[in-house]
Amino acid sequence: MPPSPASKRQKTTSSSSSSPEPPYELLYWPGIPGRGEHIRLCFEATRTPYTDVVNASKSNMPQLTSLISDTNIGDATNPPPLAPPVLRHGKLLVSQTPNILLYLAPQLGLAGPEDDGTAIYHVNQLALTALDGLSNEAHDTHHPVATGAYYEEQKAEAKKKAEDYVAKRLPKFLGYFERVLQSGASKGGEYLYAGVLTYADLVLWQCLDGVMFAFPKALGKMREGGEYGKVFGLHERVKGRKEIEEYLGSERRMKYSRGIYRHYPELDAE
Amino acid sequence: MPPSPASKRQKTTSSSSSSPEPPYELLYWPGIPGRGEHIRLCFEATRTPYTDVVNASKSNMPQLTSLISDTNIGDATNPPPLAPPVLRHGKLLVSQTPNILLYLAPQLGLAGPEDDGTAIYHVNQLALTALDGLSNEAHDTHHPVATGAYYEEQKAEAKKKAEDYVAKRLPKFLGYFERVLQSGASKGGEYLYAGVLTYADLVLWQCLDGVMFAFPKALGKMREGGEYGKVFGLHERVKGRKEIEEYLGSERRMKYSRGIYRHYPELDAE
Repeated sequence: MPPSPASKRQKTTSSSSSSPEPPYELLYWPGIPGRGEHIRLCFEATRTPYTDVVNASKSNMPQLTSLISDTNIGDATNPPPLAPPVLRHGKLLVSQTPNILLYLAPQLGLAGPEDDGTAIYHVNQLALTALDGLSNEAHDTHHPVATGAYYEEQKAEAKKKAEDYVAKRLPKFLGYFERVLQSGASKGGEYLYAGVLTYADLVLWQCLDGVMFAFPKALGKMREGGEYGKVFGLHERVKGRKEIEEYLGSERRMKYSRGIYRHYPELDAE
Repeated sequence: MPPSPASKRQKTTSSSSSSPEPPYELLYWPGIPGRGEHIRLCFEATRTPYTDVVNASKSNMPQLTSLISDTNIGDATNPPPLAPPVLRHGKLLVSQTPNILLYLAPQLGLAGPEDDGTAIYHVNQLALTALDGLSNEAHDTHHPVATGAYYEEQKAEAKKKAEDYVAKRLPKFLGYFERVLQSGASKGGEYLYAGVLTYADLVLWQCLDGVMFAFPKALGKMREGGEYGKVFGLHERVKGRKEIEEYLGSERRMKYSRGIYRHYPELDAE
């Protein structure tokens, strides 16, 4: 049923040409999961065809670079994006990771129960919080001073930042999501909201996976400690869904390297 | 027409008891503008009655602290919030600044043209980008290492971070919004999107106002340079709207102090 990796990246709706819906096209840096991974996971978890434009062919890179060029002033309907990921859906261009997720989720069935008009605000709250604490702050541990400079130029500051992150911030955010999973609003704690898979679960899963890669010792201790059992349970539950399992075993899932999540042993727990 | 400051803070729909709509209640730290200011500005710009719960009476503080307590597990429909601001609207609790704005904007007429189903995603993109670069990063200039520690404990790192922020990041974000205002999608460049006031304009205004307070020399030079004429023009335009002008002259507008935006002369441009 799922398209092959190649077809998934290079083709989109060609096999369903009867559909008037434009294809979903993700524009992101090639070769790394990065922030684009949150978008990919929504497509993969729902087996929605999409094109990962620059990974499909590096020759498509100018499509991305022209969009984020500091001379791009957008067009008659779309403001320019500042940075990738960018989603192209027909004539619509949308950027900012949580915003792309917000746009896609209702279309992909990842926005919570449809009969609840407020679900999207709860799901969005949870996704934004995971991105704040477990993606943006995780990134800042290796780039606390200057995003545009090398890690090697800010190692001393990174060491301090990472110590605070592991000691204070990670427990704060993991503890928060543990409480969310204890909440009546989670309807049982299998997923973050209303007992069903939403994009907030996929965001949290990716964020946890990233910090487990970056800080394996610290996260290993937290896992063993048992204090965040529901959070790590959710990580296993999402990973075990057959669409996700298949995706993770495919070549479409890229390896962490020097992106948001970086493993520097000197920044991990002692 | 606008309610008095006192009634605005302490009462909400009591004067319109025929309306079945629950009151809008903002829960945020008292005495500082902070992230709550983005929410206040939406209410003020549209003369929408709201209660600023903890500013109305410090005795209401437990309403906020119990919500963000690390023992709060939410309720049957609302996950717990991690941090303020929190919006209470009847039984609904929503947190995360951009999420509260997203919820309020269609109700307050600040989400762009109604006939355009995609406007909210453009407006949300612009608001998220302003918050990223001109609020979160501005905060990090004085707290680059540890959010929970004092500025005085991280002054050396803050000096480096602020230098990078003023030299690289501020021009990047101001340049971005200058291009947004040149975009055809802005419909003339008076406001960020579609020629009408949206919450993205209010967010950008507050962010600019904050960085102008924190870095008066740096922003003064950028203003004189003329490169960001449309951005500073938008700042003046929003400030000159009669609802905003009146709000800024009222006691409801609080002074910056030791919140997100802090003026440390040693962090400003030389």
